[in-house]
Amino acid sequence: MLRVVLVEPEGEYNVGFVARLCKNFEVDELFIVRPKCDINSAIKFSAKGESILRNAKIVDNYDDALKDVEIKIATSSIANNKGDILRKAVFPWELPSIMKSEKIALIFGRESVGLTREEISKADFLLFIPANPNYPTLNLSHAVGIALYEIWKAKHEIKPKITK
Amino acid sequence: MLRVVLVEPEGEYNVGFVARLCKNFEVDELFIVRPKCDINSAIKFSAKGESILRNAKIVDNYDDALKDVEIKIATSSIANNKGDILRKAVFPWELPSIMKSEKIALIFGRESVGLTREEISKADFLLFIPANPNYPTLNLSHAVGIALYEIWKAKHEIKPKITK
Ligand SMILES: Nc1ncnc2c1ncn2[C@@H]1O[C@H](CSCC[C@H](N)C(=O)O)[C@@H](O)[C@H]1O
Ligand SMILES: Nc1ncnc2c1ncn2[C@@H]1O[C@H](CSCC[C@H](N)C(=O)O)[C@@H](O)[C@H]1O
Ligand SMILES: Nc1ncnc2c1ncn2[C@@H]1O[C@H](CSCC[C@H](N)C(=O)O)[C@@H](O)[C@H]1O
Repeated sequence: MLRVVLVEPEGEYNVGFVARLCKNFEVDELFIVRPKCDINSAIKFSAKGESILRNAKIVDNYDDALKDVEIKIATSSIANNKGDILRKAVFPWELPSIMKSEKIALIFGRESVGLTREEISKADFLLFIPANPNYPTLNLSHAVGIALYEIWKAKHEIKPKITK
Repeated sequence: MLRVVLVEPEGEYNVGFVARLCKNFEVDELFIVRPKCDINSAIKFSAKGESILRNAKIVDNYDDALKDVEIKIATSSIANNKGDILRKAVFPWELPSIMKSEKIALIFGRESVGLTREEISKADFLLFIPANPNYPTLNLSHAVGIALYEIWKAKHEIKPKITK
């Protein structure tokens, strides 16, 4: 069971796109903690993910979004910086090796300020998608897409074929 | 030199997000063929990719967007279907092996109808990002993000580290 958790998302396009990505990459559950945008306006961006969005669980508490989950993976665009860090980050391609359990939540933060330290501290891992060191901050739904794509690949054990 | 080419993009959010992704993943050039949306409205989605968007080359002809390029990679969400296909598709992780040249264009199609057969026929390769067989059609900018992420990883020869 793979659950995507969005914490206080602010952009309706992001919420809609995430629902679409959940359909593209066969995610089981979408939880949204205190959405800061209109979920109905998000529908027009969800395409065939519309039913996932309509069935999304809207919750008031972060902890409620993590119920019944065994492995909690938070995400951040500022991982492994010098200075104080909460934990060393894992890379997307390392996800398969830590996703041994059946019940996993992938947690994404606010467009404006990401996840709080407290929210990150409740997770088991911190995922960082490597990118331009001068600007590794992806837009929310694009971070979701890359993480889900790597997990989908691993789940389907896609073996590169020689095509040329 | 890596160039991203958008053909007749319709959504300003997609154009803005693509500019941001070009900054995130250190793309050199952005070309837009006959945009069907307002480029100025796209700016608000481009974040620190704004200068890439302002410097994007807007061209009238598809062929102009492919000038000075040695390897042309078109993309499609309907690759390797039964029926007539233009060419066998490559997967994102196979890109490094075909990207030996210095001058590469990655070409993305319209949100509504993708690339035409004629446009695809002018490319050297067709890239397919694997996803839910029942719904592999990603939103335009999310397809761009995943493709650029795989290329960035390959370019930086990131070696997974044991972090746990
Ligand atoms: N490179 C990256 N790796 C992992 N997650 C990322 C990411 N870039 C963006 N995200 C995800 O997208 C969300 C919104 S981006 C948040 C940016 C904010 N300025 C901050 O200071 O954190 C993040 O909370 C994270 O969930
Ligand atoms: N330009 C780049 N080239 C190669 N690897 C990079 C990179 N930018 C980020 N990474 C990868 O992403 C990780 C986190 S980036 C954060 C860097 C941090 N100072 C550190 O040394 O960990 C890096 O450790 C590296 O493995
Ligand atoms: N799974 C996938 N693999 C590669 N490119 C994809 C993709 N999903 C979407 N894209 C890119 O996003 C663009 C818009 S999606 C186009 C969908 C359209 N209904 C069609 O029939 O093609 C596509 O032209 C392609 O460039």
